Amino acid sequence: MDIKQVAKETSKVLASYLTYQAVRIITNQLRETNPGQAIWLSGFSSTGKIQDGEAYLQEMLQENQEMAFRIMTVRDHLVQEVADYLPEMVRDNIQKANIDYRRQYLERITQLSSVEPNRETELQTDSEPNPDPSVS
Amino acid sequence: MDIKQVAKETSKVLASYLTYQAVRIITNQLRETNPGQAIWLSGFSSTGKIQDGEAYLQEMLQENQEMAFRIMTVRDHLVQEVADYLPEMVRDNIQKANIDYRRQYLERITQLSSVEPNRETELQTDSEPNPDPSVS
Repeated sequence: MDIKQVAKETSKVLASYLTYQAVRIITNQLRETNPGQAIWLSGFSSTGKIQDGEAYLQEMLQENQEMAFRIMTVRDHLVQEVADYLPEMVRDNIQKANIDYRRQYLERITQLSSVEPNRETELQTDSEPNPDPSVS
Repeated sequence: MDIKQVAKETSKVLASYLTYQAVRIITNQLRETNPGQAIWLSGFSSTGKIQDGEAYLQEMLQENQEMAFRIMTVRDHLVQEVADYLPEMVRDNIQKANIDYRRQYLERITQLSSVEPNRETELQTDSEPNPDPSVS
C-alpha cells in the first residue's frame, strides 16, 4: 500500500474537482450576466474533458484566455476556503458511513437469526469451517 | 458562491475516491493471494458504479459482506493516513499549475509581440479600449 502515491493521486483528483466546481460557479454567474457565454462554457465543458482539470485548463487557455484566468482565480479562491475543512469532513464521512453499514449488517443478521433460527444455523454450518472444534 | 456546499460536495467526492483507492489496493493484494476473487472484484467494480462510493458499498454489503467490510477497513486506514496532508498538497497543486499557466501565457504573448510587432499592436488597438488615453 503506497500511501504517498495515494495522497498524490488524491490531491490531483481534488484539484480537478475544484476546477469543475469553479466552472460550475462561473457558469451560474454567467447565466445571469451573459447567457450566451454561459451556454458556450457549458458546451466547452460538457465533453468529459473536465475530468482532467489540468488538460481542460490547457485547452481553455488556447480557446479563451480570459475565461481560463477566471477559472484559475475562482479555483484558487475555492481551495483557500475549503481545503482546511476537508480532512475532518472526509474522515467524519467515512467513519459515520462505516458505522452505519456495520449497524445495518448487525440488524440484518439479528433479524435473520430471530426469524429463521434453523435456516441460519444450517447456513453457517454449510458455508464456514466451524471455528470451535469442540462443538462438532 | 456557496462555500459550505462546495466543501460538503468535495468531501463526498473525496470519500468516494478513497473507496475506489481501497478497492484498487485490495484487488492488487488479491491478485497475489486469490486471483479468482481479484477477477470477481474487478468485474463487480468496473461498471462505473464505484463513482458513488456509498452506493457501491451498499451493493457490496448485499453481495459479499466480508469484502465490503474489508473495503471499509482499508478506506478508513487510507483516510487516517492521507487526510491531513491533502490541504497543503492540493493548494500547492493548484497554485503551481496556475503560476505555470500564467507563465506560459506571458511567454506566448511576448513571443507574439517580438515576432509580429505590427500585427500585435493592431490587434490591441482593435480589441480593447486603450488603457492610457495620453498615448492615443
